[in-house]
This record gives sequence, C-alpha cells and structure tokens, in this order.
Amino acid sequence: MRVSKMIKRVNHVAVAVRDTEEALRFYKEVLGLQPSESKAAPEQGLKITFLPIGDGEIEFLEPISETSTVAKFLEKRGEGLHHICLEVDDIEATLHSLSERGVPLVDTIPRVGAHGTRIAFIHPEAAHGILIELSETK
Amino acid sequence: MRVSKMIKRVNHVAVAVRDTEEALRFYKEVLGLQPSESKAAPEQGLKITFLPIGDGEIEFLEPISETSTVAKFLEKRGEGLHHICLEVDDIEATLHSLSERGVPLVDTIPRVGAHGTRIAFIHPEAAHGILIELSETK
Repeated sequence: MRVSKMIKRVNHVAVAVRDTEEALRFYKEVLGLQPSESKAAPEQGLKITFLPIGDGEIEFLEPISETSTVAKFLEKRGEGLHHICLEVDDIEATLHSLSERGVPLVDTIPRVGAHGTRIAFIHPEAAHGILIELSETK
Repeated sequence: MRVSKMIKRVNHVAVAVRDTEEALRFYKEVLGLQPSESKAAPEQGLKITFLPIGDGEIEFLEPISETSTVAKFLEKRGEGLHHICLEVDDIEATLHSLSERGVPLVDTIPRVGAHGTRIAFIHPEAAHGILIELSETK
C-alpha cells in the first residue's frame, strides 16, 4: 500500500517546555489559547497539556522524570518545537510500508497515545531532523 | 482587541533543510506528499518549497545565502522544525495587541509572505523557544 494515500493532515504540533504554567502565561494569557486538558503520562515521564487551535492543537510536553526523552531534548536543545503528528487511516499498513522501505522507526508496532488513539513515531534520522508521530484516526 | 478572538488555526509548519531535493526523497518518495510549488525568496536568502497536507502544509526552507537566518539556524541546530504559522483575521490589530502587552516582535509591521499574504513573526523569546509566524487570512 502506498503511504501517500494514507496521510491525511497535521493533527498537532508538540512543544517541549520546562514549566507548563510558565509557558501558558504566554499561550493562554497573551495569545488566548485555552488548554482543554492536562494530564500525566508517567510511562513517558511527561505532563502533557493540550491547546486546541482550529481543528488541530498544540501540545506542551513537560518532563516529570529526568529520564524522559523530553528532559534530554531540553538539556540538548532547550525549549522549542519537538515533533509534528500526521494523521493516517491505517497505522499498521503505514508502518509496514515504511519498514519495507527501510525507514527507521522508533515504534515498529503501534502504542496508545495521549488521546487514546494508536500512534507510532518515525525516527528523526529518516525525516531530515523532524520527529514525526503517526496517529491513526478513522 | 483580544488576540484570543483572532487566532484561527495552524496554517503551516516550516522545516529547515540543507538540500530540498534530498529531503524530498523522504517526504515525496516515501511519505508520498506532493510539492505544490518551489520558489526563491531572495530577500530572505531562501528557496521555499510547499508540501500541502490536508488543509495545511509543510514548508521546506533551504538557505541560498550564507547570511540567511535559516543558514544560521542550520549551523546552530541542524535540520529540523523551524517555525509554526498561525492564521489571524487582522494582523495589524494582533501586532498592536501584542506590542501593548510588551511581547517582543521580529516584525512590528506586516510584510508580504511567500503566499502573498501579510505576515509577521513573534520573537521566539516570547513564546518559549517557538518562532511563531502570524499570517493574515480573510
């Protein structure tokens, strides 16, 4: 199956922040974006906060564990854009197609993401420095 | 005027790349995204390539001048996510509102962007490391 037929839209853009409340002072109080939800994802060592914008959203990723990959990202690069999430129809078919083409994947099998959808990450080496999340939406 | 009423959606996500053709090998040949247009923006020292995806797009920014801010970005951070663009109804009102709140701006008055719309950048210091472009769409 061609991946081309499966990528539908940008679902969200994720940002690594040191302190969500501090970041919200700009995004909420100045830009007026309203967070819809904030929750812990202990298995990823993260607090994740969602800011809907149009039909997409910005996600804040704040590490709550020193071993979180986002803690390492902050240490290396500072605060900033962390990944983009692209929606696909069929995540297993997409991962299969990418694997067949030798694309390095962070997740070779889907796992459950923050919104309960099935997600997987492509390795940033494959995508010229961008960490791409795939999220299955029906 | 509150900025909150004016931010409509994420228009695009921009990526700094060293070589557009090389990057397209992944985004076009593997992911199947089709570039709609590629053009030079000599005043910014850039070649810009647009990849529509759903109702948004990914933009590739390749420096064609050593003095381009994107050349400096690549030197410092390598390839990766460069900025996000948020659509607003009235860019002058938005910039006025941001200025009044003391938000540092790259552009205090709008200029014409790659698609012919009026755009302006907020300084990344204001937005926790994210370079935010505002684009006026009616």
